[in-house]
Amino acid sequence: MQFVETGYDAFDWTVPKEWNIRGGYIEDKNGNRILDFSDSNVHIMGYSTPIDKTVSLEDLQEHIFSIPELPDAIPYMTSYYKENWAFCMTDSMRQGLKDDQYHVKIDSTLEPGQLDYADLVIPGESSKEVLLSTYICHPSLANNELSGPVLATALARWLSSAPRRYTYRIVFVPETIGSIIYLSKHLEHLKKHVFAGYVLSCVGDDRSYSYMSTPSENTYTDLVAHNALNMLGIEYNHFSFLERGSDERQYCSPNVDLPVGSIMRTKYGDYPEYHTSLDDLNVISAEGLEGAFRVMSEIIGTIENNRTYKSVIPCEPFLSKHDLYPTGTSYLSNAENRDLVNLIAYSDGHRSLLDISDVIEAPVSYLHGLAEMLVEKKLMELVE
Amino acid sequence: MQFVETGYDAFDWTVPKEWNIRGGYIEDKNGNRILDFSDSNVHIMGYSTPIDKTVSLEDLQEHIFSIPELPDAIPYMTSYYKENWAFCMTDSMRQGLKDDQYHVKIDSTLEPGQLDYADLVIPGESSKEVLLSTYICHPSLANNELSGPVLATALARWLSSAPRRYTYRIVFVPETIGSIIYLSKHLEHLKKHVFAGYVLSCVGDDRSYSYMSTPSENTYTDLVAHNALNMLGIEYNHFSFLERGSDERQYCSPNVDLPVGSIMRTKYGDYPEYHTSLDDLNVISAEGLEGAFRVMSEIIGTIENNRTYKSVIPCEPFLSKHDLYPTGTSYLSNAENRDLVNLIAYSDGHRSLLDISDVIEAPVSYLHGLAEMLVEKKLMELVE
Amino acid sequence: MQFVETGYDAFDWTVPKEWNIRGGYIEDKNGNRILDFSDSNVHIMGYSTPIDKTVSLEDLQEHIFSIPELPDAIPYMTSYYKENWAFCMTDSMRQGLKDDQYHVKIDSTLEPGQLDYADLVIPGESSKEVLLSTYICHPSLANNELSGPVLATALARWLSSAPRRYTYRIVFVPETIGSIIYLSKHLEHLKKHVFAGYVLSCVGDDRSYSYMSTPSENTYTDLVAHNALNMLGIEYNHFSFLERGSDERQYCSPNVDLPVGSIMRTKYGDYPEYHTSLDDLNVISAEGLEGAFRVMSEIIGTIENNRTYKSVIPCEPFLSKHDLYPTGTSYLSNAENRDLVNLIAYSDGHRSLLDISDVIEAPVSYLHGLAEMLVEKKLMELVE
Repeated sequence: MQFVETGYDAFDWTVPKEWNIRGGYIEDKNGNRILDFSDSNVHIMGYSTPIDKTVSLEDLQEHIFSIPELPDAIPYMTSYYKENWAFCMTDSMRQGLKDDQYHVKIDSTLEPGQLDYADLVIPGESSKEVLLSTYICHPSLANNELSGPVLATALARWLSSAPRRYTYRIVFVPETIGSIIYLSKHLEHLKKHVFAGYVLSCVGDDRSYSYMSTPSENTYTDLVAHNALNMLGIEYNHFSFLERGSDERQYCSPNVDLPVGSIMRTKYGDYPEYHTSLDDLNVISAEGLEGAFRVMSEIIGTIENNRTYKSVIPCEPFLSKHDLYPTGTSYLSNAENRDLVNLIAYSDGHRSLLDISDVIEAPVSYLHGLAEMLVEKKLMELVE
Repeated sequence: MQFVETGYDAFDWTVPKEWNIRGGYIEDKNGNRILDFSDSNVHIMGYSTPIDKTVSLEDLQEHIFSIPELPDAIPYMTSYYKENWAFCMTDSMRQGLKDDQYHVKIDSTLEPGQLDYADLVIPGESSKEVLLSTYICHPSLANNELSGPVLATALARWLSSAPRRYTYRIVFVPETIGSIIYLSKHLEHLKKHVFAGYVLSCVGDDRSYSYMSTPSENTYTDLVAHNALNMLGIEYNHFSFLERGSDERQYCSPNVDLPVGSIMRTKYGDYPEYHTSLDDLNVISAEGLEGAFRVMSEIIGTIENNRTYKSVIPCEPFLSKHDLYPTGTSYLSNAENRDLVNLIAYSDGHRSLLDISDVIEAPVSYLHGLAEMLVEKKLMELVE
Repeated sequence: MQFVETGYDAFDWTVPKEWNIRGGYIEDKNGNRILDFSDSNVHIMGYSTPIDKTVSLEDLQEHIFSIPELPDAIPYMTSYYKENWAFCMTDSMRQGLKDDQYHVKIDSTLEPGQLDYADLVIPGESSKEVLLSTYICHPSLANNELSGPVLATALARWLSSAPRRYTYRIVFVPETIGSIIYLSKHLEHLKKHVFAGYVLSCVGDDRSYSYMSTPSENTYTDLVAHNALNMLGIEYNHFSFLERGSDERQYCSPNVDLPVGSIMRTKYGDYPEYHTSLDDLNVISAEGLEGAFRVMSEIIGTIENNRTYKSVIPCEPFLSKHDLYPTGTSYLSNAENRDLVNLIAYSDGHRSLLDISDVIEAPVSYLHGLAEMLVEKKLMELVE
C-alpha cells in the first residue's frame, strides 16, 4: 500500500484533507435516536463537516438527501470539494419527520492526512504491461465498489499462479483523484509499457454484460474485448466512450492516452440500486462475479496467446502424413480439423491469431494450441 | 460587373452572339392577338431567331412548346446552339388554336455583343477562399433562378458585416457557359485558394432541404455541409454527384477539381413548377429563403469556427478550481458542462472541432466558444 | 497434355500409384450379378484395391456405401490415401440384399504410373496472365466435373478467336493434387504474372449463380467478378473463402497467394445430386452452361477493357461541336449521352473504368468504347 499526503499536487488536482468519521445521529427533542450512522455507512454524506447542534425541521430539511422514487433506499452522497454536512435517509423516514427541534451530531474530522492506494505488479516474460484498474471509495456499496476489488484480487491470484508472457499491473485507487495521483506518479512508465488495459467496475451482478470502448473504438484493447466476449457467446451492451464515468476518464484523457476500456456486468447508473444503500450483497452473486472473471480470463488468455504465425509449405499440407487427417490416425475431430485447415489457410505471416479468430470464429487460445502443434510438425513458424 | 465579348474562347466553348428581344406575338387572321411576349417573358423560346410571317396552324405547331400534363403552365425553353424560333404557351391555349392562318412575329436580334457576369470577393484574415456560386439566366423564374442571387446577396451583406477568418468569393454567372468562362479566367487562383464551395440553386421554396455531394463524397465541403444540416436538426435529401445539373458540373470537372457541393431546398427537376411559368413568386417564400440562409450561415459559421485544439493538462482538470463545475460557482449548465468535459476529453491535437462535433453532437461554433474559454483558462491550446 | 510419375514430390505431397480398373461386380451364390461396374462408373469406390473372394453379407456391409436419404442415388466415393475397397450402390439395392454369401470382384490395379494434366496458354499483348482452372477427376459426374472442362474449352476457343490484351492460362488438373503439382512446377512464373484468376466448378446447372471471394475479399479478381455479375443484372450467392472446397484452396494458400476466386452456378454441396450418380446430364443444360459462359465472358471483357483515362479539357466539353449532343447531329441516345457525360466527369486519371462502372452502373466494355471515341476526339487520354 502506498499513499500521498494532503496537499500533494497531481496535475491539476490537490489531495484534500483526510476525512474520518466516528459516528453521528439525529435525535428528536425527547432524545429518541431517529437516525444513527452505526446503522448504515451511507447515513452521513461523505466528507461532511462536524456538527453538533439543535435545529428546526425546516433547517434540517436543507441537510437531508432522500429519493422519493425509491422510498426505502438511502442515497449515497458526497461533497468532497464544497464544505457542507448532510444526512442521507430513506424517503419513508423523511416523510415521518415531525415539525420539531432536532439534535444533529456528526463526529467527523477533516485534517491533514493521507490518501491510500495500492498496486500489484506481476512480472511476466515481457516488460509490456496489461493494466487492470479498480476503485476503492464507495463505503458499503456492493456492485459499484466491492465487486471490482474482489474480481481484481481473484485475477491477481490466478495471474500469479503460472508464468505469464506479459506483465500485469493491478491498481486499486479511489475513483478519479486516485487514478490521477497514480498517473502523476507513473505516467512515463505506463505510456511506455501499457499496450492494453481495462477498468473493472460493477462486475458483480448477474443481469447483463457490458463493454465500454476506448475513444477511438478500435484499439487492441477493444478488438480483444469484443473477440473474447463473442468467443464466449455472450451478448453484451456496447457503450461508447461518451458514456464514460469511471477511471477510463483519466486513463484515456488526451495527454495520458492509454488504451483502456471498461468491463462491467450492468453499467453504473443503469441499475436501480446504483448509488444507494440497496446496492448491497443482494445485488451481487457468485454467478455474477464468476461471469466477470470468465470474461476477464478470456480476455487475458486472448492477449497471452495472440501471436502471428506463417504457414511454411506452399499449398495445403498432406494431412495424413502428419497424422492430422480426421478419419485417419489423427486425434483431431472434424471440427478441429476444419479449424486447423482454416488456421493454415489464413496464417500468412500478417494476420494474427486474433485476426483469424474474428474470421473463423474460434478462440485465440485454442488456435494457439493448434498453431503450436503445427510448429512442432514444422508446418508453421512463429513470426512474432 | 464584368463581361466577355462574343467569340471569346473559354476552354472548349465559345461565347455566342448576344440575344436581345423587344417583343413578339401570334395574331389570328382577324388581327386578334392570341399570345403576346409582353404577357410573359417565357412566351418566346430563349435565343429565338427573328421571324415575321404568316404560317398555317400545321406549320405553327412545329414551333410551339406546351406541357399536356400541366395545361396551365408555360414551359421555359431555350435553343442556344441550334438556330430556331418557337413560342411557348399553356396547353389550354394550344388546344384552342383553330385550323387557320397565323401571323407570327418575333422582334429579336442575335448580334455580336457581350456576356455579363459578376463576382464579389470579401477578403478575410486568410487568403484561403470559400466559393459561393449562383446563376443568372432563367428570366422570370423564381425558385430556379431568383432565389439563388437573393440568397447570395443576403450572405454577401452578412459576410461583409464583420471581420471573417476566410475570404469569400461570391460568383454570379449564367449557368454552364458562365461558370466555364469564370473558370477560364481564374482557374489557377481558384485551385490554389478555394478549400470549400457551394452552388446555391433553388433555395427559395419551403418544401424540403437538399444537399448534393462532391464526386468523392468526403471532401471538407461535404463534411461541413452534413455536420451543419445535422446540427440544425434538419432532415434533408442527400444527392450524389450523379444527379448533378448546375454549375458543380464545371467546378468539379476533372481538370478543375474544386471541392464544390450544392445547397438546395427542393432540387431542380424535383418540383412540379420547375422550368415553367408556374415557378413564380408563389413557389418561394420568406420562410423558404430564410431556411436556406440559416443553412448557409451555419455552414459558414462551422467553417469559420473549425479549429483544432489540444488539452494541456494530463487527466481531467479540477473543474471547481477553474469555476467550471456546474453546481459550484460556474455559469455553465449541466449540458454545457457535459459538452465541455467531452471537448476536453476528445481534444487530442488531432481531432478538429468538426470531428468532435460529429461525435458529441454539439455545433462547431458553440464548441469554439467553449474551447476559447478553455484557452483563456490555460486548459487548452490552439494547434491550428 | 503433361504428366508426372508416381513418386513425384510436390511440396508436401507425393504422387500415388496409378489406379486402373477394368471391371467389377457382386454376384449372389447363384451367380446372379447384383451389381456390375459396367452399369455405372461410380459403382466401385475410386482407388479400390483389387479383390476376388466370397464374403458374408455382414462382411460385405462394411464395404458398401449408400445414402438412405437418397434411396435412388449411388454415392460417389474415393479412398486415395487409405487402401481399401468398396462398392457404392443405391440404398434401395442395399435394402434388397439377403443374408447370404456374395462373390465380390474388383479387377483393378494400383501400380506405378502417371498423373496426367494439361494447360493451354493463349498469349496476349501483355505477359500478364489471367488464370482459369478446372478439374478432371470425378468420373461420369456432370455438374461437379464435366461442366468445368466444357466451359473452359468453350472459353479457350473464344479467347483464341481474336487478339487479346492479356495472356490466358487455362489449366485442367485433377482436383487438389493436380493443382498442387501444377503449382510446384510453375509457382514462380504464376506469382510473377497472374493478376486475376478463377476456378470454374459446377458451372452447368440452371438453378443459381455463385461467386466465392479470395481470402481478402477485395482483390482485383473480386472487384471484377462482382462488377460483371452486377452489370449482367444477375442475382448471385456470395460465398466467403471459408466455404472453399476446390482448387482455390491451393491457389490462395499463404505461400502461393494468387488472386483466385471461384465462379459457380450452384455451389458444390449445395444441390441434392452433388457427389452422386444423380449428378448426370439431367442436372446440366445448355442454358446452364451458357449462363456461366456469359458470366466468364463478361468478366474477361471487363478485364480486357478496364483502363484508366483522363479528361483533357477543363470543364465539360461543348458536346455539339464534337457531334456528341443527343438532340444534335450525334448518333448517341440520351442514355448514351448521360453515360458519356458521366464518363468525362469521373475520368480524373485515377479512377479506372471499373471504378467508374461501379459508380455509374454501366459496363466496362461499353465505357471503353465511349472512352476510345473520346480519345479520337481528343477529349480524353489514356493514362494506363
